Amino acid sequence: MSGPLSTQELEKIDAYWRAANYLSVGQIYLKNNPLLERPLTLDDLKPRLLGHFGTTPGLNFIYVHLNRIIRLHQANMMYLIGPGHGAPGIIANTFLEGSYTETYPNIERNADGLKRLFRQFSWPYGVPSHDAPEVPGSISEGGELGYSLLHAYGAAFDNPDLIVACVVGDGEAETGPLAASWHSNKFLNPITDGAVLPILHLNGYKIANPTLLARIDPDELEALFRGYGYNPSFLEGDDPKTMHQQMAAVLDTLYAEIRAIQHKAREQKDASRPRWPMLILKTPKGWTCPRTVDGKPVEGTWRAHQVPLSEVHSNPEHLRLLEAWLRSYRPQELFDANGTFREELADIAPKGRLRMGANIHANGGKLLVPLVLPNFRDYAVPFETPGSVQVSATQVLGGYLRDVMRKNLGTKNFRMFAPDENASNRLQAVYEASGKRWNARYEDVDESLSTEGRVMEVLSEHLCQGWLEGYLLTGRHGFFSCYEAFIHLIDSMFNQHAKWIKSAKELPWRADIASLNYLLSSHVWRQDHNGFSHQDPGFIDHVANKKADTVRIYLPPDANTLLSVTDHCLRTKNYVNLIIAGKQAAPVWLDRESAVRHCAAGIGTWDWASHGEGEPDVVMACAGDVPTLETLAAVTVLREWAPELKVRVVNVVDLFTLEPVEDHPHGLNHEDFNRLFSEDKPVIFAFHGYPAIVHKLTYKRANHGNIHVHGYKEEGTTTTPFDMTVLNGMDRYTLALDAIRQAPAVRHRRDAAEQRYSEVSQRHKLYVSEHGEDMPEVKGWKWTAR
Amino acid sequence: MSGPLSTQELEKIDAYWRAANYLSVGQIYLKNNPLLERPLTLDDLKPRLLGHFGTTPGLNFIYVHLNRIIRLHQANMMYLIGPGHGAPGIIANTFLEGSYTETYPNIERNADGLKRLFRQFSWPYGVPSHDAPEVPGSISEGGELGYSLLHAYGAAFDNPDLIVACVVGDGEAETGPLAASWHSNKFLNPITDGAVLPILHLNGYKIANPTLLARIDPDELEALFRGYGYNPSFLEGDDPKTMHQQMAAVLDTLYAEIRAIQHKAREQKDASRPRWPMLILKTPKGWTCPRTVDGKPVEGTWRAHQVPLSEVHSNPEHLRLLEAWLRSYRPQELFDANGTFREELADIAPKGRLRMGANIHANGGKLLVPLVLPNFRDYAVPFETPGSVQVSATQVLGGYLRDVMRKNLGTKNFRMFAPDENASNRLQAVYEASGKRWNARYEDVDESLSTEGRVMEVLSEHLCQGWLEGYLLTGRHGFFSCYEAFIHLIDSMFNQHAKWIKSAKELPWRADIASLNYLLSSHVWRQDHNGFSHQDPGFIDHVANKKADTVRIYLPPDANTLLSVTDHCLRTKNYVNLIIAGKQAAPVWLDRESAVRHCAAGIGTWDWASHGEGEPDVVMACAGDVPTLETLAAVTVLREWAPELKVRVVNVVDLFTLEPVEDHPHGLNHEDFNRLFSEDKPVIFAFHGYPAIVHKLTYKRANHGNIHVHGYKEEGTTTTPFDMTVLNGMDRYTLALDAIRQAPAVRHRRDAAEQRYSEVSQRHKLYVSEHGEDMPEVKGWKWTAR
Repeated sequence: MSGPLSTQELEKIDAYWRAANYLSVGQIYLKNNPLLERPLTLDDLKPRLLGHFGTTPGLNFIYVHLNRIIRLHQANMMYLIGPGHGAPGIIANTFLEGSYTETYPNIERNADGLKRLFRQFSWPYGVPSHDAPEVPGSISEGGELGYSLLHAYGAAFDNPDLIVACVVGDGEAETGPLAASWHSNKFLNPITDGAVLPILHLNGYKIANPTLLARIDPDELEALFRGYGYNPSFLEGDDPKTMHQQMAAVLDTLYAEIRAIQHKAREQKDASRPRWPMLILKTPKGWTCPRTVDGKPVEGTWRAHQVPLSEVHSNPEHLRLLEAWLRSYRPQELFDANGTFREELADIAPKGRLRMGANIHANGGKLLVPLVLPNFRDYAVPFETPGSVQVSATQVLGGYLRDVMRKNLGTKNFRMFAPDENASNRLQAVYEASGKRWNARYEDVDESLSTEGRVMEVLSEHLCQGWLEGYLLTGRHGFFSCYEAFIHLIDSMFNQHAKWIKSAKELPWRADIASLNYLLSSHVWRQDHNGFSHQDPGFIDHVANKKADTVRIYLPPDANTLLSVTDHCLRTKNYVNLIIAGKQAAPVWLDRESAVRHCAAGIGTWDWASHGEGEPDVVMACAGDVPTLETLAAVTVLREWAPELKVRVVNVVDLFTLEPVEDHPHGLNHEDFNRLFSEDKPVIFAFHGYPAIVHKLTYKRANHGNIHVHGYKEEGTTTTPFDMTVLNGMDRYTLALDAIRQAPAVRHRRDAAEQRYSEVSQRHKLYVSEHGEDMPEVKGWKWTAR
Repeated sequence: MSGPLSTQELEKIDAYWRAANYLSVGQIYLKNNPLLERPLTLDDLKPRLLGHFGTTPGLNFIYVHLNRIIRLHQANMMYLIGPGHGAPGIIANTFLEGSYTETYPNIERNADGLKRLFRQFSWPYGVPSHDAPEVPGSISEGGELGYSLLHAYGAAFDNPDLIVACVVGDGEAETGPLAASWHSNKFLNPITDGAVLPILHLNGYKIANPTLLARIDPDELEALFRGYGYNPSFLEGDDPKTMHQQMAAVLDTLYAEIRAIQHKAREQKDASRPRWPMLILKTPKGWTCPRTVDGKPVEGTWRAHQVPLSEVHSNPEHLRLLEAWLRSYRPQELFDANGTFREELADIAPKGRLRMGANIHANGGKLLVPLVLPNFRDYAVPFETPGSVQVSATQVLGGYLRDVMRKNLGTKNFRMFAPDENASNRLQAVYEASGKRWNARYEDVDESLSTEGRVMEVLSEHLCQGWLEGYLLTGRHGFFSCYEAFIHLIDSMFNQHAKWIKSAKELPWRADIASLNYLLSSHVWRQDHNGFSHQDPGFIDHVANKKADTVRIYLPPDANTLLSVTDHCLRTKNYVNLIIAGKQAAPVWLDRESAVRHCAAGIGTWDWASHGEGEPDVVMACAGDVPTLETLAAVTVLREWAPELKVRVVNVVDLFTLEPVEDHPHGLNHEDFNRLFSEDKPVIFAFHGYPAIVHKLTYKRANHGNIHVHGYKEEGTTTTPFDMTVLNGMDRYTLALDAIRQAPAVRHRRDAAEQRYSEVSQRHKLYVSEHGEDMPEVKGWKWTAR
């Protein structure tokens, strides 16, 4: 078989590949006898066989051939693997190239190290069985499938010299996010971004079934990827020697193609979309494992998915097969007497930072440059008295974000992400600083699109989230704005990212990365026009389940607090920050410095809105912009319905202040909590989301039994804004009535209050039904100081 | 322009289309003067202009042409629209064909009815602005995009005569679920299933941006859909007359193609995958709306997305444009003096059940045939004493489900859905009754695949969920098994389905549909091998946020209770039932009849496991299989560590029993709750999921302050099963220690218990670290009665 490899090169590459495969099998099976210096016995085997071999030899095959390309061209390359269950292969390769030992010095490059390498894998207090933060060179957890290609594009953005090789498994390729993510090529600029080299790895099977893409006609397969905008090359086979020559040849071509595309675009300053190359590689699942076991085909089938020989403990024939399988890699040719990988083989790996396990982008925190931030105080909205000015909080924020964008254009390390919704969320000022990225075809009518834009918009929360994760994990900053209800689309992606952060924090060698910042707008209370499907504030609950030292939730009540909170979030590291704020015109309650102080504390009494001296009869608490509005309106209603009632208003910006400090670092201690909420007074709490989470956060508090939470209770349709609060019992009148019901001090007011409540709610229903909009007394309501 | 339509037909079709467009604009703008009998004034306008016009004329265009096909062939057709914001169009068409008035008699077919039709749209206490349960003929909520094609395939399954026309918007087409769902054609049998006719509607723009598929080269577009396995036809234009002829011609061809495919497959009994036709239809966004407004192009751009003229209240020129726009449809030609749609035009619509707004499949509950269920008691696992037999609960369930499948093969109304995981979840016995559906290419090595299989497996939770929703909404039954952690992938789809059920229940004309049944297995406590990414029990919290009368959560502690719970769930309607059960061998605690009684109650004391007479010193509560195991083991530890401690064991199967009955229909009243949990004794609660939800459900309970919940606290990695409980403080020793800490009766035992706890946890760490598996005393632990 002729090809670009000399016989010697081919031999070395094959030996290197065998070494990686050998170490992969070793990790799955062995705790002893790592070099097979004596016949395999039961004592050498791990008690539990955990790991996925099926995808691994293919991953190893690609790795060694990418190594060759890196060596030839001194290329800056990352390796992302969608089939992340194949961690044994990546660990093996990073061990062979030395980056593993540099990261974990106790895994030495000798027989002892080999033994530890094998033993630690899928072993308690060892390393996980999937690609994970623990693996050098990785930025993708390999558990939940579907995000590799998005991470790859996210990594390539603004790294013009980087090539991200991304293996997409044919199982993963069936997922929705992956199926959409091929279109990422319409958002990649060949001049200012790096390249992604997708390698679709068809090994034909998932855990129990064939894969779709391996069972369609070849012309369909090719058409599909041409349709996605790629120029696919194909390579299929199972004879190692032949495959080595062919793989070397095809990668030479693909590498040249990438560089030619980039060269042309950069020379000609032409950022129009090229047809990027990709590889469709077909190799057997479990390549090189036993062909048949107990008379059934294993290599090349789903039976090789995990542990191809599973009865080695009880079936001597399986044990014999395992030994033969291990010896088929000829370990004695690969490792010297000390168990050290032979110099002449190790030598074909790239050196230093060029090793994919040592690529600095994969430990992106090392590259993190803090954002240059404008002074958010300069954007604060002035007013005469609280509530006298109405603005769209997100529109105000848009001005600030525009300047964040401007100030960091030079370093190219900040992007914004939204599913077609930045303008809808009133952040369109950012387009003045940078356009919306678009590398597909343009038409005359287009506005604010740019081939170099730093605002990423596509109608897919999955794409936004995946790109952003890749961008953050390679050491940059980002901001994701989304309709509140639809952020649930990426619940599971958030989970995986939060888990990544939690695990990465525990690894001293991983540098801190910028936080993932969400702004949820078009929120539940102001989706009165879009209706029930657009009303869901449950992401709060979802986020709150993750580790306390990883997640933050902010509910700024107005534009000025939104500015302060956002400024803070953009400075943080290793968090997921969730900010929820409305886009509709709404009152500004706190002036610039009050807003800063309030946000720094996270919670506080609003004396200017409270009412009566000394200890209150009732605490009116609120978290979120609409709940704050209704609470303040309820205070004014109470002035009329129960003038002698002493009311304290407490506003919560930082939701986790409610939780005890022993459960969350932002939590109040009990003394401070009691000072705000009292130990025995009724608390009427208007909350942005589902009420239960307030109970969940406060159940250890002294006064918990007397906290009455009003929030979204899954009632809604297309109606008016105020009717949304009425449907869910969070309107000013219901809050006022509840305060009177709960406060013993105004017991005598209850009947009258019930009566007034009944009158006003009937008036509301009639008015809304008749006029299709809210009553003037509600629509035109403004806060008045007493 | 020549074509299949006579001049008269063409005129009528065009008039019908104009009528639909007129009614669409009317719904968005008008509350009065519906027939424009006098010049438009401000008084005629709605105060808030809500609705989406952009997609609507295209939807109307397709509707009228499908009507023609239905009339010509007496075809059984459903109409699903991905761009569900275009509800005005569907409402208009169902009004024109009469199905709307049959559903809502107060919307009469005259001027009064027209006025009410207009006024109710997006009006408080009227109808929502998107496609929704309120719309006759609909099975897809139009708010969250991405699921139309999945619903279409779900509807087509097992309905061999049905053609589901499905409009996919080019915005929606960017989403992950939609991008993957094109591959559904590999799961459709041309003999036993109906047909899906996808119509990709390229109108070029989303809310603020161009769409990807409208901005790639035509050859890429065609290649993409050929790659997806379709045979695409193209139609593009904006001249109505020309487009009517061409649309009629292309639909004639596509209809013939579908019938030819079916005929051939059915004649030749050849279920191999055909290349189904599809249509790619390109028409302007906001087709027929004002071409330019204020000098800016509107028709054919994103500016037509919602309300093309938004300043009609304040800008007289806009009001004039609106009137001209409305009159451009020539309403006086369309409606008679009474405001009734002219007979000769109405006559071109299909009649009776053939009207798409009256298609019985779209009110699937009407077709619901209850499942024939085997007696689940026959599958119960017998034992001598509780805990003496270990089985895989899901494997036992697999036998039951196999027979559920068998007994309903004749009616073809039951399918199972799983992301490649039925076998991994140990349900593979079902393959004995029916194979895994596969209509792509076969190879010799394949097992359990079948072109007629009723088990749907694909590596996409989105596809499983979407198909199942479509299947349920058209009156059939289903069962979805999934890895617990990854069910979060469809959090948002669950939301939308739960919202659909809630809204549909409020409509008397919508018949009840079968519940959506989830079995989550491979759960958090036994993903010790797959690691942290696979450990997430948060779907419980997510489900619990939805309406109490819609959701149910079951945590059966063993195989026999799992059988009983599943049997119950398969009989229910209009719920989402969430069942969580492990697949690993685990003890059976309750015999057949005890299991039935326990599940019927939902919660109960396990006297056989409790310890001591009379009032207990401590209540050991548990929910979930692993928590139950650890709790019973803790009881045996307590016998040793604090022999005099009186322990009551309470097991929870039905999670909502914890909530007060006023909040959930399954909730216990306070008296019953207190009887079980006492009013003042410490409760040590071992819970399957995140602990907070127990507090959320019980915060109104008398004894709430004394409930100590142990559950998953987001700690995990690849480790041993028992170590998972240790990492999260839910192991037997921690539970026992906590009982001793909390129970005043054994205050004197605390120090000794702390000591023993410390010893055993050190022993555990050492053993696991050394041996890679759990200590024999844990691994071999069996319950022994006292």
